[in-house]
Amino acid sequence: MTIEIEKGPPRFDAAFREKFAELVRWRRDVRRFRSDPIDPHLIEQLLALAAHAPSVGLSQPWRFVLVDLPERRGAIRDTFLCCNAAALAAQAPERARHYARLKLAGLDEAPCQLAVFVDPETPQGHGLGRRTMPETIDYSAVIAAHTLWLMARAEGIGMGWVSILDPAAVAAALDVSETWRLIGFFCLGYPEETDTVPALERAGWERRRPSEGFLLRR
Amino acid sequence: MTIEIEKGPPRFDAAFREKFAELVRWRRDVRRFRSDPIDPHLIEQLLALAAHAPSVGLSQPWRFVLVDLPERRGAIRDTFLCCNAAALAAQAPERARHYARLKLAGLDEAPCQLAVFVDPETPQGHGLGRRTMPETIDYSAVIAAHTLWLMARAEGIGMGWVSILDPAAVAAALDVSETWRLIGFFCLGYPEETDTVPALERAGWERRRPSEGFLLRR
Repeated sequence: MTIEIEKGPPRFDAAFREKFAELVRWRRDVRRFRSDPIDPHLIEQLLALAAHAPSVGLSQPWRFVLVDLPERRGAIRDTFLCCNAAALAAQAPERARHYARLKLAGLDEAPCQLAVFVDPETPQGHGLGRRTMPETIDYSAVIAAHTLWLMARAEGIGMGWVSILDPAAVAAALDVSETWRLIGFFCLGYPEETDTVPALERAGWERRRPSEGFLLRR
Repeated sequence: MTIEIEKGPPRFDAAFREKFAELVRWRRDVRRFRSDPIDPHLIEQLLALAAHAPSVGLSQPWRFVLVDLPERRGAIRDTFLCCNAAALAAQAPERARHYARLKLAGLDEAPCQLAVFVDPETPQGHGLGRRTMPETIDYSAVIAAHTLWLMARAEGIGMGWVSILDPAAVAAALDVSETWRLIGFFCLGYPEETDTVPALERAGWERRRPSEGFLLRR
């Protein structure tokens, strides 16, 4: 760290930026994994980088839970199956068949499974920046997950965000502090396929829109 | 886009990954800006890349509002000053003097100012993935902001997240849909200084902790 400070700020050249843009465009939410394991040391390196994400008041509120025990993984799969069945039942009739064909998680195959929680009661940061927008503590943990996602992809590892879960069931299955909130559950593994087009777009569920439509000027 | 698909997935080599890790470590929450303007075309390019962030159900719920009018910027500054004074008044006595010395926003200097909102009622994505964890729509907009942050830094542009604001006052000042929620307000500009150490750590407010402390195994 000292060495980095002494050598001055790095330059990011056009070639790096083009590659980084490629990383963003290729990231993907992966639901189809090969079963090859991921080196545990690599996972730790990815999590160490994620801990350099920005956080409100430097609170570092992210809590990473690597889930290995089969019975705990089974409980996660159970809540996914239950919530996904409820989501299917709630689909408009004209979309239900389409929904049923989507593969929305890789919980059976992904060799690495990670829950990301936030500890909203952490004293770290002394509450700075959280009085009027307390949700920024959750957002900090989200950004840590996204940092992990990008670097995982740069390592050739796919990551998929599973949100079709009962957060209380996940917290209970993983026996974590009652004060923590689930941010997301993630499957990681080497992907079966890669593509710049989101899986939901390839499946005809939704299409990505150009950015001009999201911009206002005031 | 077609060309990219045809050429197959890109490889990200060790040199890219090291540079990306450096980007993550150097990103910083910037509060001291030079006044040089940012090329408006570059801002548009950054926002276009941010629109490639992952989003729940491919909902792309982010709404970017570039704020240029002096009276609107003034209203944002007013809510920051008001909320920051309240935060100072609420500090524990032993931390108040320290808090008062922190520079927590660059609203007077930053040449580019951006509000990021989420539209939680967007039909895009058909509600996929949002039944049990509806907050994932907010998280999608957070990740778009983080994508912008990283690429801005790679362009040499600093970004600072201002959360010491009344979200309702910001929405009113910017005259946006009442159904949108503020995710964050961001200052962008060329930074006066760069450092791998967070500003809050340099100011002695908080220190960054090693990642091992954030990891559990289950």
